[in-house]
Amino acid sequence: MVFITRRERFNAAHRLFREDYSDEKNLEVFGKCSNPLWHGHNYELYVTVKGEINPETGFLINLKDLSRLVRERVIEKLDHRNINLEVDFMQGRLASTENLARAIWEQLEAGVRMLGAELHSIRVSETENNIVEYFGH
Amino acid sequence: MVFITRRERFNAAHRLFREDYSDEKNLEVFGKCSNPLWHGHNYELYVTVKGEINPETGFLINLKDLSRLVRERVIEKLDHRNINLEVDFMQGRLASTENLARAIWEQLEAGVRMLGAELHSIRVSETENNIVEYFGH
Amino acid sequence: MVFITRRERFNAAHRLFREDYSDEKNLEVFGKCSNPLWHGHNYELYVTVKGEINPETGFLINLKDLSRLVRERVIEKLDHRNINLEVDFMQGRLASTENLARAIWEQLEAGVRMLGAELHSIRVSETENNIVEYFGH
Amino acid sequence: MVFITRRERFNAAHRLFREDYSDEKNLEVFGKCSNPLWHGHNYELYVTVKGEINPETGFLINLKDLSRLVRERVIEKLDHRNINLEVDFMQGRLASTENLARAIWEQLEAGVRMLGAELHSIRVSETENNIVEYFGH
Amino acid sequence: MVFITRRERFNAAHRLFREDYSDEKNLEVFGKCSNPLWHGHNYELYVTVKGEINPETGFLINLKDLSRLVRERVIEKLDHRNINLEVDFMQGRLASTENLARAIWEQLEAGVRMLGAELHSIRVSETENNIVEYFGH
Amino acid sequence: MVFITRRERFNAAHRLFREDYSDEKNLEVFGKCSNPLWHGHNYELYVTVKGEINPETGFLINLKDLSRLVRERVIEKLDHRNINLEVDFMQGRLASTENLARAIWEQLEAGVRMLGAELHSIRVSETENNIVEYFGH
Repeated sequence: MVFITRRERFNAAHRLFREDYSDEKNLEVFGKCSNPLWHGHNYELYVTVKGEINPETGFLINLKDLSRLVRERVIEKLDHRNINLEVDFMQGRLASTENLARAIWEQLEAGVRMLGAELHSIRVSETENNIVEYFGH
Repeated sequence: MVFITRRERFNAAHRLFREDYSDEKNLEVFGKCSNPLWHGHNYELYVTVKGEINPETGFLINLKDLSRLVRERVIEKLDHRNINLEVDFMQGRLASTENLARAIWEQLEAGVRMLGAELHSIRVSETENNIVEYFGH
Repeated sequence: MVFITRRERFNAAHRLFREDYSDEKNLEVFGKCSNPLWHGHNYELYVTVKGEINPETGFLINLKDLSRLVRERVIEKLDHRNINLEVDFMQGRLASTENLARAIWEQLEAGVRMLGAELHSIRVSETENNIVEYFGH
Repeated sequence: MVFITRRERFNAAHRLFREDYSDEKNLEVFGKCSNPLWHGHNYELYVTVKGEINPETGFLINLKDLSRLVRERVIEKLDHRNINLEVDFMQGRLASTENLARAIWEQLEAGVRMLGAELHSIRVSETENNIVEYFGH
Repeated sequence: MVFITRRERFNAAHRLFREDYSDEKNLEVFGKCSNPLWHGHNYELYVTVKGEINPETGFLINLKDLSRLVRERVIEKLDHRNINLEVDFMQGRLASTENLARAIWEQLEAGVRMLGAELHSIRVSETENNIVEYFGH
Repeated sequence: MVFITRRERFNAAHRLFREDYSDEKNLEVFGKCSNPLWHGHNYELYVTVKGEINPETGFLINLKDLSRLVRERVIEKLDHRNINLEVDFMQGRLASTENLARAIWEQLEAGVRMLGAELHSIRVSETENNIVEYFGH
């Protein structure tokens, strides 16, 4: 069993807030991340998959296939987008990094399996100081 | 003469577009950066000042003073904000990194002089691949 | 279950040595890290906590609370300090990165639980080449 | 139980290909990595070992010993070398990062045990976007 | 006048040697970089251009155009290639980082002018410890 | 003319203070950097030299020679040392990063000339946020 990680990046806007909170409550709970006119980040996404090395190729998985999958199902939907308003797989969810990591897992799990590997973890860093990791359960 | 650089960071949303362009023209010129619903970045700001070393302190400038100046006049106005809509010193300017660097220069030049040094350059990195530097003229 | 990591940094002096060793023995075992007049590092601390996502906030834990906890119980005691002489929770312990990681765990475990999460790991990097991680047992 | 990681680096040339494939098949499977005249990378190697902290030294393991082991058995054989043609422990294996990580594990496992610790993982990054990790089974 | 920098990367193999030197002389002058069976690097290329900000777009230059230019004239020729044997603009030159920076300048100078800016500098980092910069004269 | 930069690192302890200041005055001017029991940093040193490319070797200067010079005259004196108490070339100077950059320049200027190049700049980063650069006049 070996683990391979592909890094991809996306730049997006978001806002943390609840419609059923007052502005004061949103500010209290979410701080400056609740700014109604949005802010944004250079997100870094690390997708880790695991499996056996294919003796014919020396690969666990062809990284070009993994990169294409991540770009099609995740990056193209998030990059230069508003996470709250434009990303189908985040509708109905608070745009926190935790929820983002979990939603990206759901976007990728089946596709990774079709490539012959198993999704191990989704790591999303919002800034160099804040990092979320999700292992699927 | 010695040069000292202070790094500060801010996370902001922005959009590149002109109101007098059609949506097609905005997309053609500004690409995905023209997305009407915003996107954002983790900007890194490097402020470089120059001057003589004060023999009594060994400092060109007290970095705490420089950091406070940069935070008050630049970071507090930009961090977790929408550059197009909320930043006073960017009103009437396209929210490009070039214009941002020049506007930050204007925000800091006089204040650095009052601290006894001279502003040398403003460097703003939008992503690890795109960096703008402005030297004041 | 999701994992969230907060990075904090501190700059400190330390020395690796045993009083019951001769200078020669200290030099042999601890090398240049035993220098009697101290040396120091820019330490990076990664605190990882785990738990369920709160459906109301989308957060595992409010990172502002976690950051405040880490700053109060760890960073304020270590930053710009001498680890051997000034840090209460390192008294009676060799100032190795291994012991530091374990002591930081002890400083934070109960506080993280009071914030509603569980401490998962403490990672301390002394230089870009040397990294210690501790999982609490 | 504590985990300690040592980073070492090496610069090497390699090529991904199978002699029993045609040039077209090699290009199809391995892409530009199959270039017959080689290409190369600045590889980063992270060796993680685990064990108990020695109460006399505060160390899990003396990092100088670990660094020497890694340099002798791995770095000196790989650095400024052609992985396909010159590295004894890669003979008969495709020069993929997956196989490299597994072979480095085999080079180090016994030596780490002789230093009184247990090898936990080998992580090899080929570029900032592609990272392989191997845990020994 | 403002300066804008675009980072691009390429992975390549090379060797430092002179055919008119003996193997011993090559080893003495070029060290392990003279290994006859090649080694390689993850090169980072920083292309800096300068000029006036276009008031209509807020751009000095459209970074997409600059990126396309750099990819077509430089990256596609170097990436996953052998610098000594396969790169047309390095023929007849020793494959040192100094010569590489100068040759990349020559590849880009006219094209940057056609984009309406002036090439300011070419910076090539071979490793995190070795960086060359060339300003065109 | 081409510019080449070599990065070296050192870990050291220091303290900012004046003996003729009271403890209160030292704290007011130098802040927590005046801590009497020292603190320390992982300093990064970038030495940039300039000159013509030697057509025989393709080198401005052999980086191995430059690295050896920097290690002998600078790194060995600073690494794992107390800058205030143990470093001959810092005696009688406040241990600020500004003074350190200037003193390192003096340590290297003549030696670089003997290697056939000219020293261009000394850059010292104390943390990722604080960087000093000195150009010799």
